[in-house]
Amino acid sequence: MCLSHEVLTAAYQGFLDQLTDAGLLIPSGVPGVYGHSGVFERVLEGFDQSITRRSAHLNAEVIRFPGVLNRQHYLKTSHIESFPDLMGSIHSFTGNERDHLGLLQKRADGEDWTQDLKPTQLMLTPATCYPLYPTATGTLREGGRTVDLRSFVFRHEPSIDPCRMQMFRMHEAVRLGSPEQALAHRGLWMELGKEILNAAGLNVECVVANDPFFGRGGRVMAVSQKEQSLKFEMVIPVATAEKPTAIMSCNYHLDYFGKAFGIHTADGQVAHSACMGFGLERVTLALFKTHGFHPDRWPADVKHELGL
Amino acid sequence: MCLSHEVLTAAYQGFLDQLTDAGLLIPSGVPGVYGHSGVFERVLEGFDQSITRRSAHLNAEVIRFPGVLNRQHYLKTSHIESFPDLMGSIHSFTGNERDHLGLLQKRADGEDWTQDLKPTQLMLTPATCYPLYPTATGTLREGGRTVDLRSFVFRHEPSIDPCRMQMFRMHEAVRLGSPEQALAHRGLWMELGKEILNAAGLNVECVVANDPFFGRGGRVMAVSQKEQSLKFEMVIPVATAEKPTAIMSCNYHLDYFGKAFGIHTADGQVAHSACMGFGLERVTLALFKTHGFHPDRWPADVKHELGL
Repeated sequence: MCLSHEVLTAAYQGFLDQLTDAGLLIPSGVPGVYGHSGVFERVLEGFDQSITRRSAHLNAEVIRFPGVLNRQHYLKTSHIESFPDLMGSIHSFTGNERDHLGLLQKRADGEDWTQDLKPTQLMLTPATCYPLYPTATGTLREGGRTVDLRSFVFRHEPSIDPCRMQMFRMHEAVRLGSPEQALAHRGLWMELGKEILNAAGLNVECVVANDPFFGRGGRVMAVSQKEQSLKFEMVIPVATAEKPTAIMSCNYHLDYFGKAFGIHTADGQVAHSACMGFGLERVTLALFKTHGFHPDRWPADVKHELGL
Repeated sequence: MCLSHEVLTAAYQGFLDQLTDAGLLIPSGVPGVYGHSGVFERVLEGFDQSITRRSAHLNAEVIRFPGVLNRQHYLKTSHIESFPDLMGSIHSFTGNERDHLGLLQKRADGEDWTQDLKPTQLMLTPATCYPLYPTATGTLREGGRTVDLRSFVFRHEPSIDPCRMQMFRMHEAVRLGSPEQALAHRGLWMELGKEILNAAGLNVECVVANDPFFGRGGRVMAVSQKEQSLKFEMVIPVATAEKPTAIMSCNYHLDYFGKAFGIHTADGQVAHSACMGFGLERVTLALFKTHGFHPDRWPADVKHELGL
């Protein structure tokens, strides 16, 4: 169905207003950036614990990176080619006291003081699994690796859609190994992910999807990604019933990260990888949309599942 | 005691090597940025829950901001004057496809492609409480407000001291109200903070402290801050016994944030504020230093306190 821009905008704004009126989100003055209430956080963390509990049998290694990425590692990926508009590059002031006076003068004069800053060694993390691969350079142990990750990620796409935040939390499980192991991981999580979401009362649908590649060249890549069925998303109506929102994805990367970071399997092949990721804020918003804004009135089985 | 730079550097490097050898920290190639193991995270979250449990009687509002701050709000503070070297300004690519080709060409030619980026509406959060104040503009309810916050914060100070991370988590409690209320909050937390740290087996010392203001002018501000006893820190030996590390601080801001963001008490005065903040990674490192690298061998009362 093709929705007009106006209809969608009204739906997003309406849902956002409901969320801020209810005190679940606190506006920051920047689209896509909010404070979250204690109730919002309790639901988010409750769902996160449900992921952990229901995937405990996978015995994944747990690693947590802060939401920043070594700039050199960023540049070993093709993110700057494929998603330049989403990037977050961290800049800081590295000058002396005289330079500082110049910076303050520019600011006082209403000039662009930010051009006086220098890029740091860091980028914001575009997806939770990015910082893992550079630490896996070399040869994997027999059987490969399964890693459980969670972090904030940044995507520069200011929007009034409450589901499209600029800084949000993603819980991922990554598999590094043979093509078969990577695909099995993705298949497993397409089932398990649905099970976890269903247990929270979210009736998601699984669809083939593509990433938002930049520009005209990007459209070709999107088509290719879809044709190869590399990406699946679990979608559910959140702000509007007509355009469902992806709240989880299951991705097969082929040997993309294995090549970029020199990761090999125990038998010397370039490693393949797959990841699944829950968008924790999106899942939380889907829970509020589906069950209402008062968790104490949610179905008993959902409250039990989320420890509420 | 005055330690030579070499002695300190050796102590930091030694402790860092121990932590990475033990797998608690995973190097990223950038000083002050690490992945954390599941064991590290379990200890950190266990301590965080101890803060929540032991301060539950304060009935603070819970709000969680992501680690980003509206750039306009950032510029209403004096951070750019006082700590320019620590700032994190987020830049992104906002051009069209032709601009993108230019960006990629610069990168291919080894030129500085980052000057083609534009500042976004966002800065990284320098301290967990900064995003709160702009949302409190206006008149406080009778009795003021007490808010419990936690977020990642960014400080651009690359260092091999494992305690000096560039991106780390801070758990804060902020009081907005009269001068008496702000000072009472700080006094309460100087006691409660010590109690919480002692319960985890950390024998901290409370010292008057100052922030690392930039430049020569900054030295004057640091002296003034100390003379007014605005900042207290709980310190404990971590990387080295000779130079203890601050793992918690208790701060009185006078009417600094009240003025900057137009916050008033119910009786029309400019609000004063105070905050306490635990540096969660630093507390965790202090726990490993104090009790050893194997939480299963820690004293029973500490394990019980941290739910380990």
